[in-house]
Formats: sequence, C-alpha cells, structure tokens
Amino acid sequence: RLLELLAPLHAADTADLLEQIGPADREKLIRLWGDGFDGEVLTELEEGVRDEVLEVLDRKTLAQAVQDMETDDLVYLVEDLEAEEQDQILQHLEDADRHAVEASLQYDEDTAGRLMSREMVICPPHWTVGDAIDFMRAHEDLPETFYKVILADARMHVVGTVALGTIMAHRRDTALRELADTSPRLIPVDQSYEDVAYAFNQYHMVSAPVVDGDGRLVGVITIDDAMEVLEDEAEEDMKLLAGVGDEEISDTVWETARARFPWLAVNLVTAIVASLVISLFEATIAAIVALAVLMPIVASMGGNAATQTLTVAVRALATRDLTRANAMRIVRREALVGAGNGIAFALIVGVVGVIWFGTPMLGVVLGVAMVINLFVAGLSGILIPMALSKLGIDPALASGTFVTTVTDVVGFFAFLGLAAALLL
Amino acid sequence: RLLELLAPLHAADTADLLEQIGPADREKLIRLWGDGFDGEVLTELEEGVRDEVLEVLDRKTLAQAVQDMETDDLVYLVEDLEAEEQDQILQHLEDADRHAVEASLQYDEDTAGRLMSREMVICPPHWTVGDAIDFMRAHEDLPETFYKVILADARMHVVGTVALGTIMAHRRDTALRELADTSPRLIPVDQSYEDVAYAFNQYHMVSAPVVDGDGRLVGVITIDDAMEVLEDEAEEDMKLLAGVGDEEISDTVWETARARFPWLAVNLVTAIVASLVISLFEATIAAIVALAVLMPIVASMGGNAATQTLTVAVRALATRDLTRANAMRIVRREALVGAGNGIAFALIVGVVGVIWFGTPMLGVVLGVAMVINLFVAGLSGILIPMALSKLGIDPALASGTFVTTVTDVVGFFAFLGLAAALLL
Ligand SMILES: [Mg+2]
Ligand SMILES: [Mg+2]
Ligand SMILES: [Mg+2]
Ligand SMILES: [Mg+2]
Ligand SMILES: [Mg+2]
Ligand SMILES: [Mg+2]
Ligand SMILES: [Mg+2]
Ligand SMILES: [Mg+2]
Ligand SMILES: [Mg+2]
Ligand SMILES: [Mg+2]
Ligand SMILES: [Mg+2]
Ligand SMILES: [Mg+2]
Ligand SMILES: [Mg+2]
Repeated sequence: RLLELLAPLHAADTADLLEQIGPADREKLIRLWGDGFDGEVLTELEEGVRDEVLEVLDRKTLAQAVQDMETDDLVYLVEDLEAEEQDQILQHLEDADRHAVEASLQYDEDTAGRLMSREMVICPPHWTVGDAIDFMRAHEDLPETFYKVILADARMHVVGTVALGTIMAHRRDTALRELADTSPRLIPVDQSYEDVAYAFNQYHMVSAPVVDGDGRLVGVITIDDAMEVLEDEAEEDMKLLAGVGDEEISDTVWETARARFPWLAVNLVTAIVASLVISLFEATIAAIVALAVLMPIVASMGGNAATQTLTVAVRALATRDLTRANAMRIVRREALVGAGNGIAFALIVGVVGVIWFGTPMLGVVLGVAMVINLFVAGLSGILIPMALSKLGIDPALASGTFVTTVTDVVGFFAFLGLAAALLL
Repeated sequence: RLLELLAPLHAADTADLLEQIGPADREKLIRLWGDGFDGEVLTELEEGVRDEVLEVLDRKTLAQAVQDMETDDLVYLVEDLEAEEQDQILQHLEDADRHAVEASLQYDEDTAGRLMSREMVICPPHWTVGDAIDFMRAHEDLPETFYKVILADARMHVVGTVALGTIMAHRRDTALRELADTSPRLIPVDQSYEDVAYAFNQYHMVSAPVVDGDGRLVGVITIDDAMEVLEDEAEEDMKLLAGVGDEEISDTVWETARARFPWLAVNLVTAIVASLVISLFEATIAAIVALAVLMPIVASMGGNAATQTLTVAVRALATRDLTRANAMRIVRREALVGAGNGIAFALIVGVVGVIWFGTPMLGVVLGVAMVINLFVAGLSGILIPMALSKLGIDPALASGTFVTTVTDVVGFFAFLGLAAALLL
C-alpha cells in the first residue's frame, strides 16, 4: 500500500523522500521496491544517500535502471564512484553508451565534458526540412528531449543549429541551411560548469553544441542541466560565505561536525588575534571598565557593514557585474557608503555613549572609532574579494575571514587606542 | 566606430555594459545609437538603469523597440513603471498585445501571471501530426521559441502537451492525443515566482501551461524565465542573510547607504543588548581584566557556528530539503554538532587560556562557556529559521539578527557569569 502511494511521485520527489528519511527506513523502502525501483531516482539523489542506495540495490535492478538512462545522467551517477564500482555499473550498458560515458569521464570534473549528453540530432548541412523530418520519423531512439537540430559537416564541424519550431514552420523543400542560426554559441568541452551556467543564463540558451579543441562536435548541453549547475554554484557561494563547505542536510552528525571544524578553527585564530589587540590595552580597560562594555559595539558594526559589502561584491563577481570597467567606481562607492553610514552611526552611538556613561569624551571616542571602522569595513569589504579574485582564489571561500579580522582588529584598536589617548 | 564594435554584442552584454559605465557615458551612448538602439536591451537591464535609459530614449525608437517584444518581456519592462509611463509605452502596441500585457498586469506581482507569455501554440485535441505541421507552416507569427504544442479543448482546458521532437518523430496521420503527455504539470496563474522556479528545477520542465482558477489556459512559462527567477531568489536569500536588501551594483552612493542603514541600525540595537549584558559584570571585569580580553572569543565562535547552521537551514528551507519529515532529526543533528564542536574547541581554548594567563580556572571558565555557546548556537541556528518559516516570515530576512543576538548574549553571559561565580 505504501508503494501504491509512492508510485505517482516524480523521481525527484521520490529522491527527496529517500533523503529525508533515516538510513534504516531508506534500506527498508528500497528492499520493498525490489525491481520496481525507478532508476531515474538515482540521478536525483545527493551523493551520500545515493552511495547508500547503490549498496542496497540488487545488481539486476541496477542493471535495468542504468540501461534506460541518458549518458549525461550516467556520467553524473558514476563520476564520483571508485573505479571498480564504475566498472560494475558500466558493464551493464550497451557498447555505444559505455564508450560515450567513458569518453565524458576523460574530461576534467566540473567541465562541460561532464555535463554534456551524447544524445543529439545531427543533420548534414545540405538537407531540407523534409529530409530532417523523414530522418526523425525513421529513427527509433531520438533523445528524450531536444530542442534543436545541429547541422554539422562530414568532419563534425558545426555549421549551424535549427530550432524544431522553425523546422515545423517551413515547407518540406526549404533548405535547413536557410533556417539555421549559422553562428550559434558553442561551448568548449573544457569550459567550467560556472561559465556554462553563466552563458545559458546570460544568453537565454536552451541547448548548445559542445565542441572539442579542434572544433569538432562532441555533445550537447541542455538548459535543465545548466539550470541545476547555476543553482548549485549560487548555493555554493552562499555556503562558503557562511563558512560551510560542501555539506548536505542528509549528512551525519560526525560528517557535519568534522566538515565545519576547520572553518571554526580559522575563526578561532582570528578571534585570538582580536584578543591580542585588546590585551594591548589592558591597563586602559582596568582604568575605565566602561570601555569593555562598549568595545564590542564598534567591532560588531564594522563586521556587519563589511559583510554587507562583501556579499554584494562576491555576488557581483560571480554574476560578472563587477568588472574592470566599473571596479574603481564601485570601490569609491563602497568607501563613501562606509564613511556615510559611519558618520550617521557615530552620531547615534556618540549620544548613546554620553547618556549611558555621562562622559562626553567617551561619546566622541566611540563615534570617531565608528567612522573609522565603517570606512575600513567598506574598503576591505570590496578590495579583499576583488584582490582574491584577481589572484585566482574564490572570493566566496576566503574573503569572510580576512574581512572580519580586519574590522575586529581595526575596531578594537581604534576604539581602545583613542580611549587611551584621549580619556586617560 | 564605437557603434561598430558594439554591434555584434548580445543584448544582455550590451545591457551589462550600460550598467557598468557611468550615467553620463550612458546617456551619450544612447544618443549615439539613436534609432539603432536594440529594444531587447531594455528587458536585460536592471531596474534603476532601465528607468534612466527610458527617459533618454526618444519616443519613436521606444515605440519601435516595444513592438518587437514578446508579451512576457513587455510585462517585465512596464510592471514597475508609473501608470502614466505604462500607458505611454502600451499605446504603441497592437491591440492584441496591449490587451495581453494589461491582462498580465492584473495578476499579483511575483506570480506566474507576470512571468507567463501569451505567445503559445494551441491545437485542438483531435488534430493529427499533419494538422499541427500544416497549421504551423501556415502561421506567420509563431512564438520566437516554443518547445511544446498545447492541446486544449473548446473551453480552453488543457488536455495535454506534445513536445515538438515527438511530433517530428511521427507520421502525419498519428493523432496528437496519442503522443501527448496527458497529465502535464500545470502552473496556477497565482503561483509565486519561487514556487514556479522550484517546479521547473525539480521536475526538469522546459515549458509549462499556466491556468486560471477555472483551469483555463491563460499562458505559458518557459524555462529561461524560470531560470532567471531561480537565480534571483537564491541571490535574494544570500543578500538577506548578509543584511542587504534589493540593491544593485549600479545604485548610487546615497541609494546604497540608505538601503543598508536599517540593517545596521538593527544590528546596533542587538550590539547594545550585548553591551548591557557585559555591563552587568563591570565589577567582575574590573577585578580581572583578562576577562575583557577573552570574552569576544566565546561570542565570536558562537556567532560563527550559528551562522553556519543558519545558512544551511535557510537554504534547506528554500530548496525544501528541510521539511516536517526530517525536522526533528535535523534539529537533533545540529544540537549534537554544536555540542561536539563545542567540546573540541573548549579543550583548545581552555589550554590557550591557561597558557596565556596562567590561571587554570580561567581555562575552565572559557571552555565551559564555549560548550554552552556552541550548543546554543546550533540549536538557535536551526530552531529560529524553522520557527520563522512556520510563522510565514522569510527566514532569510530575519533569522540572522535573532540568532547572533542569542549567541552574543549567551556567550557573554555564560563566560562572565561563570567567571564571576568561579574566579572571584
Ligand atoms: Mg532533491
Ligand atoms: Mg559531482
Ligand atoms: Mg540532461
Ligand atoms: Mg539531469
Ligand atoms: Mg539541488
Ligand atoms: Mg563558485
Ligand atoms: Mg563550483
Ligand atoms: Mg546583466
Ligand atoms: Mg520586476
Ligand atoms: Mg520569455
Ligand atoms: Mg540577473
Ligand atoms: Mg525568498
Ligand atoms: Mg522573492
């Protein structure tokens, strides 16, 4: 009865379900399905859960499942497996499919070669609409989904692409070449996932031919796969900014704790650096304990302002809205925004400081430290990710630590230093 | 000569260029283009820059530009304009297009009704492949891109959809009904952008019919528009988590500073709350100044651990990987991860504290406070976004402030409170 309830689910929903239940239930459910298991579910699962499922599935069911898959999904399925397990799965495939998958696996991880599918419809450039239609009618195993016919010459160089809608809108005797987009955007087979996703989104592409170094057609990427990559890349940046690596919600306690530990360890080092700055002013704090009460305010505001700038910068670098063309203007803007909000909050905290502790000079110190720190926050929030990106380091990965270290150090130093100079 | 250089650019690249140069250059470039301005650029621009461009464009160029646009792009173009400006643009359209755009504008912002296009190919369910092909050949103005033919009855109820590739693969006398997916996923016209994008990504859709409350076909959404929304929603969450609203890199200093001010103001309030907690222990700090040096460590580690958990939680809520089915297991996991890393870092900072200040009890206080705060960080990092989401509040919007307030308050309170109890 449970199986009946689950039957109408889309493979992606079934996969979500498997991810959300515990490992024991997962195993039970798989066994319950037996050879009724829908192979497509495998391509929808997170890596960790998928590995578990692969272990539980019996060989026959698995063999059946993989035979129905498109080559791009097969690559996605096996690319993270050990060589031995890969072979076990690949042996069930027909020769053509196995060769296609093995060819894709030759390309680097996270490049177009891994994302592309080998299933495509290729026509010689001299064909007419009628030829193409007859060809497709005669062919049993067209790709499951395709949106364009690719015109390629005998050496497999892409001459153009024709959308199916365009073919259908013209008479049988029309030459395909006349209907073709003769300079379609081609994806180099070694292009990174990020660049592929960017191109699809920027140019509203639905499918694109993939070509090797000699310009020969080797596959096709479709927008649904590019969409998945686009979202994954955005998610990756979001997590990196928060100090979270490649973890999934289905990971265990131990995996999660271990994955987050290094990020926290880096933060501990920066926190200790900030403490060292404070320790320079122990005598000042001993004399005026109010300083200990107020000092986190300046650091916290700086950290927040820097995070705002940093996030906008990292995102703009990822979407290529921040380039050499506008870099100087954006740096200037962030510096001014930092200074502007610095002055606004200096006035507010200055007044708060005076009212709270009744010492006008304490308000001045707090206000001036605030202006300094928010200005520095704006500048470092934009300059650090730009510099890292220039050095080829992912700004989402490393900026956060640098930037908050800067605002902590500057915040404590400016506030306590000014206090030591003006209040003692 | 500049224009010649720019001519081969895709409209999206031209739009990026316009966004990246300053307002004065922008105006010059538009005037230089004159009536050679590519109307499609308008649909690719950020809102702020687009409004500037609309003001500079002369009426005739604008009229020409909008006449070539698809209805979904027109809606995107005019939806944020004042009623008067809207009318100015809409008056240039043919009646059918104007009515279509006006109908879309009746639907709520950020719903399927605003995203859908009116251009679609509809066939009666009794047609054959041959009928459909003849119809398309006879029609001059098919949609620019379409991937499916929609079968709808006389009352415009969707009976099924047929992919173009499937039509092409079959003989002229095949009934469309036989080839159709007879239960395609339909998008309700009032469905939110987020849900539409989720459905496209989850189910690998390329286009979907949009239906009104009576189940009548009113439009179609294609994946390229859904992809854009998917990315925008991820970007929105990323920015909200960092305390940044709907700003663009092309915004002015004043716009940016003003937009970020409220987020910083909220942070100031939480920073002052943390300061109030510290002020409870002024006497303790006066007695042992080392406490002032070490106290930011506990708070900072708690804030970081909480941000890790929070980001994973917010993301998992957005992608619907965190649901009622696994909520309890995830809460338990985060509590254990918090406690686990808390113990690990307690040992480290305990040793650091002892070595640095030579007081074993200080190390114990630091360590115990660390365990408490990282445990609380894990729990609040998961429970607060879940609670907000349950209350219908966007967890990306509000969680950060709550969570870091909790870890600041608990961090300072636990550390200084333990110190007061054990060290004085
Ligand atoms: Mg999923
Ligand atoms: Mg992978
Ligand atoms: Mg695919
Ligand atoms: Mg796929
Ligand atoms: Mg995903
Ligand atoms: Mg990246
Ligand atoms: Mg990546
Ligand atoms: Mg753009
Ligand atoms: Mg809008
Ligand atoms: Mg569109
Ligand atoms: Mg965009
Ligand atoms: Mg949202
Ligand atoms: Mg939204």
